[in-house]
Amino acid sequence: MTGRDGGTPLAPIGNSPVVILVRPQLADNIGACARAMANGGLFHLRLVAPRDGWPQEKAWRLASGADRILDAASVHADVAEAVADLHHVLATCPRPRHVIKPLLTARGAAAELRAICARDLRAGLLFGPERAGLDNDDMARADALVRYPLNPEFMSLNLAQAVMVMAYEWWMSADATPPRALMTNETRVATKAELDNFLTHLTAQLDACGFLRNLPKRPGMVRNIRHLFERGEATEQELRTLHGIVTELAEGRRQLGREEGG
Amino acid sequence: MTGRDGGTPLAPIGNSPVVILVRPQLADNIGACARAMANGGLFHLRLVAPRDGWPQEKAWRLASGADRILDAASVHADVAEAVADLHHVLATCPRPRHVIKPLLTARGAAAELRAICARDLRAGLLFGPERAGLDNDDMARADALVRYPLNPEFMSLNLAQAVMVMAYEWWMSADATPPRALMTNETRVATKAELDNFLTHLTAQLDACGFLRNLPKRPGMVRNIRHLFERGEATEQELRTLHGIVTELAEGRRQLGREEGG
Repeated sequence: MTGRDGGTPLAPIGNSPVVILVRPQLADNIGACARAMANGGLFHLRLVAPRDGWPQEKAWRLASGADRILDAASVHADVAEAVADLHHVLATCPRPRHVIKPLLTARGAAAELRAICARDLRAGLLFGPERAGLDNDDMARADALVRYPLNPEFMSLNLAQAVMVMAYEWWMSADATPPRALMTNETRVATKAELDNFLTHLTAQLDACGFLRNLPKRPGMVRNIRHLFERGEATEQELRTLHGIVTELAEGRRQLGREEGG
Repeated sequence: MTGRDGGTPLAPIGNSPVVILVRPQLADNIGACARAMANGGLFHLRLVAPRDGWPQEKAWRLASGADRILDAASVHADVAEAVADLHHVLATCPRPRHVIKPLLTARGAAAELRAICARDLRAGLLFGPERAGLDNDDMARADALVRYPLNPEFMSLNLAQAVMVMAYEWWMSADATPPRALMTNETRVATKAELDNFLTHLTAQLDACGFLRNLPKRPGMVRNIRHLFERGEATEQELRTLHGIVTELAEGRRQLGREEGG
């Protein structure tokens, strides 16, 4: 299998948790789960007693290219068999009741899974069937439960959405992207000297055309113009464009002056 | 509309960003987006030129109860019209090219949206059509772009999954759930004194039955047993169960001794 960007093989990098779908009903959902997993860098799928049997062609159609995850999925008779070789198991559970167990957020779970996998232990994540969710015996086999903080007035994730949130948090738990950056490799943020240079050019032209002729107000007006441009994090390229705009507008004005005067 | 837990009406709480689906193709996806929005506490939906027109019954079937979001959705001819009354617009964009714009992670975007909404400004989130994504003119109307950190070898979210991640991060940006807690309201974590009390009981019975008869090794064995129980964060209720187990096992052993001796 190759990634959507073409060429690069999609392969597990290091140790990652196993996603275990317990008694899933619809093959569509199994396929959509595989797609969600691939997005978040989860590659190991196990199915416990899928209702309509396995394999099913429909799953591959919904996987949007995450075929290798489905190809390698194993089928198990029950949760005990599916977790037998694992060291640590978390069970997702939107509404835990009467279970005395540590309860993790999705983010907390991702951090713990990351730590467990870094110790070369094998971890698994249980997801229950579409309607009923995991039963009490399934949950008893887990080290901890996972409940996503979401709108308590409307908690209704489908199976693939539930896997998506966990896969996303798994990926994020090792991600170092800055929350805000300037997107470009064609230019760069302008330095303060470059911005000053443009503002000097602009101010000179505004003096020349008479826009700043009210001398008592001039310092405040110049400052207000500076405020706007300092806020916008202009790039070096954009400043060159602005230099050009100012020059052209001023030139047009001069030519117009000559024509009118001539 | 009522929440799935029954009774509670699903209503916007405070100011929240508008989700704007630009030229969405499938009504199913619009419905699934509404479902994802409701989970994350996003309630305002706008549609720009939906391919197959609007309203469409199929959307309501996929919304899993988030009907009110669809009922209130507005339709717009283009992005300019859809964002006209907003103060701040973010555009989701998995693979930005040749765009000089701040680039936010989903988490960074959620934090900024939270701050913008707290200032009583109206914010919007643009999502592009299923295959093509937003075009360059759509992106030019945004203050910043949003790219989710996800597996670069397999970046293939469907529309509702993309909305789900953003809705989840929106909810999380105001959530204070501890990443790990003990799930129960029926009992509580045992105190160290309660645990000591149990270990004293256990040790006494192990002395009585001869399990600790190797006196040089006794302190180390007692300490190892303590290590296990100290790790497990036992609850007060579980310690009572363990007291009962030890008592019953010891009692059974004594009765057996009497029978064998008798």
